[in-house]
Amino acid sequence: MPHINEGNQTMSQYDVVVSAVEQARQRVVPYVRHTPLAPLPQAQTDLPSQLRLKLENLQVSGSFKARGAFNNLLLASPEQRDRGVVVASGGNHGLAIGYAARRLGVPATVYLPNSASEDRATRIARQGATVRRYGDNPSDTFRHSLEHAERDGLLYVHPFDAEGTIHGTGTLGLELLDDLPEIDCVLIAIGGGGLIGGMAATLKQLRPNVRIIGVEPVGAAKMLPSIQAGEVVELPGVRTIADTLAPRAVSERTLRLAERYVDEIVLVDDGQIVAAMRWLWIECNQLVEPAGAAVIAAALSGAVNVDSYAHPVALICGGNAAAEPIFAGYEQIVTTLADFSK
Amino acid sequence: MPHINEGNQTMSQYDVVVSAVEQARQRVVPYVRHTPLAPLPQAQTDLPSQLRLKLENLQVSGSFKARGAFNNLLLASPEQRDRGVVVASGGNHGLAIGYAARRLGVPATVYLPNSASEDRATRIARQGATVRRYGDNPSDTFRHSLEHAERDGLLYVHPFDAEGTIHGTGTLGLELLDDLPEIDCVLIAIGGGGLIGGMAATLKQLRPNVRIIGVEPVGAAKMLPSIQAGEVVELPGVRTIADTLAPRAVSERTLRLAERYVDEIVLVDDGQIVAAMRWLWIECNQLVEPAGAAVIAAALSGAVNVDSYAHPVALICGGNAAAEPIFAGYEQIVTTLADFSK
Repeated sequence: MPHINEGNQTMSQYDVVVSAVEQARQRVVPYVRHTPLAPLPQAQTDLPSQLRLKLENLQVSGSFKARGAFNNLLLASPEQRDRGVVVASGGNHGLAIGYAARRLGVPATVYLPNSASEDRATRIARQGATVRRYGDNPSDTFRHSLEHAERDGLLYVHPFDAEGTIHGTGTLGLELLDDLPEIDCVLIAIGGGGLIGGMAATLKQLRPNVRIIGVEPVGAAKMLPSIQAGEVVELPGVRTIADTLAPRAVSERTLRLAERYVDEIVLVDDGQIVAAMRWLWIECNQLVEPAGAAVIAAALSGAVNVDSYAHPVALICGGNAAAEPIFAGYEQIVTTLADFSK
Repeated sequence: MPHINEGNQTMSQYDVVVSAVEQARQRVVPYVRHTPLAPLPQAQTDLPSQLRLKLENLQVSGSFKARGAFNNLLLASPEQRDRGVVVASGGNHGLAIGYAARRLGVPATVYLPNSASEDRATRIARQGATVRRYGDNPSDTFRHSLEHAERDGLLYVHPFDAEGTIHGTGTLGLELLDDLPEIDCVLIAIGGGGLIGGMAATLKQLRPNVRIIGVEPVGAAKMLPSIQAGEVVELPGVRTIADTLAPRAVSERTLRLAERYVDEIVLVDDGQIVAAMRWLWIECNQLVEPAGAAVIAAALSGAVNVDSYAHPVALICGGNAAAEPIFAGYEQIVTTLADFSK
């Protein structure tokens, strides 16, 4: 069989059926928010005023991950839900599963790598999930959590490589088309590729002329080299402030979706990401996590020329910035004021 | 004339007529947001679940000050509006006047003390207002801005001591009664006293049994000593992280309103305020300025026993946290990651 046909075979195995995304939307709509598609404030001048922000940082659990989490749990049988769910996640997937599991009465265990911040662990535990730390790198955490699920016959939900997850992120494509039928460009951050895979497949099948632009942090760029190589490239290491965009590899599924449906991928560095977080705070009063600001970094830095589109959208994927760096500055001020008053 | 009558005389001069607050609401309603009265997330446990948060940090311009700003500008004659408005403000009043002036096409000049952060100045200038720095302490800034207004015959809007401002903050009382007619307690931060004055007067006249609890930072407590002294007490200095609660004195008007309508005043310190900011971020994904978290500090610290009310509300007065301390931590991380990669 020639290579090209193998590729098509693989693609058809992973392709996204729009009616399945529509069914996913019916499934999750009682539980997730139709998030705002906000115009920029009139007073700002750094970005063209036609750019709109899709604020998934205001989604339940603080990120788009809630869509896939609910879809996967609702697809499981009542018996599976009763037994419980296991996931591994340093961040938003764990929070989303914790949130969805609590809403649906499903026992949940979330594995975190030892390096995960105390803030993340606390937030997930607050949802009622059992939090376990295991492994010094995310691959060990992942393997261990999968063994746990298999041993105990529990539902396992992969953070990005599952059909239910892709259909969940596809619902964001449907929402954008409802709110802005004339959309002609969307900027989407890439971590494992589940967000861009589901959104791009849904949007491109319904509106072939929408330009899909992916954004990766330069210190954890894995989709771009994978597309260039024609196969999944695993990075030896990652280094970026956008921790929720930092798995070491995409999956076969998300790679094939990106090959087919993504028009362009651009890279941004950490300094640009933090500048974009600051911009979102000052201009829009939205504090987001670094991953959530990556698309704004791409626009502000000129990596993407947003001006050339009439109805562009930047997908702000999440808002769960860790508390530690945010409050370090404030706690320093309290200490200084207290010292000064002695 | 006996002292008690003098007091009554003064009071009647300053009293708030509810129908005037209702008129103010009609005036400002096309321009300000009916902000959410949000229940606490189900997962949190530190505060009783019946506590609701009135999120004025989501108000246009990022704080409740927009209500008074619009009311004052809309009360002015078209000729006054054409000539322009002058204010002095280190923070939210300046932002609110800047925002309202832009919406209404009024030329605005905002004076800031030399010590105001670059972030505040930038935000106000972005609204299109002329920003001028003058004076090393806010009293000098205030005096100078007033001279400017008088010299040029411009409208001057005091940050808290104006009838139009008090009627503007009173609209928050009407909104709370619309959304929660059974309200039995409200926690309100005190800066100059304009917020609590307008809200307390409106609420108490319509619902005498609502308990009004004021919250002051211990390093800038001026309403409590003024009530104890029976006259306006000017502090020799202030020291608090809640910079928008830090004028050195309340006014005769706000003191008389507080004497009449406020049931209790509690104090919180800076450490409690920052802990409350962190709590609001972790539990509610709301980043607010220190002043906005003061009421939560009062509840978390036990200074107010929120549990003893059936329908209590915490008024989150503003969200305009300065960007500098928030992003210092993130910029440190970027530097560390960059050093590590050399």
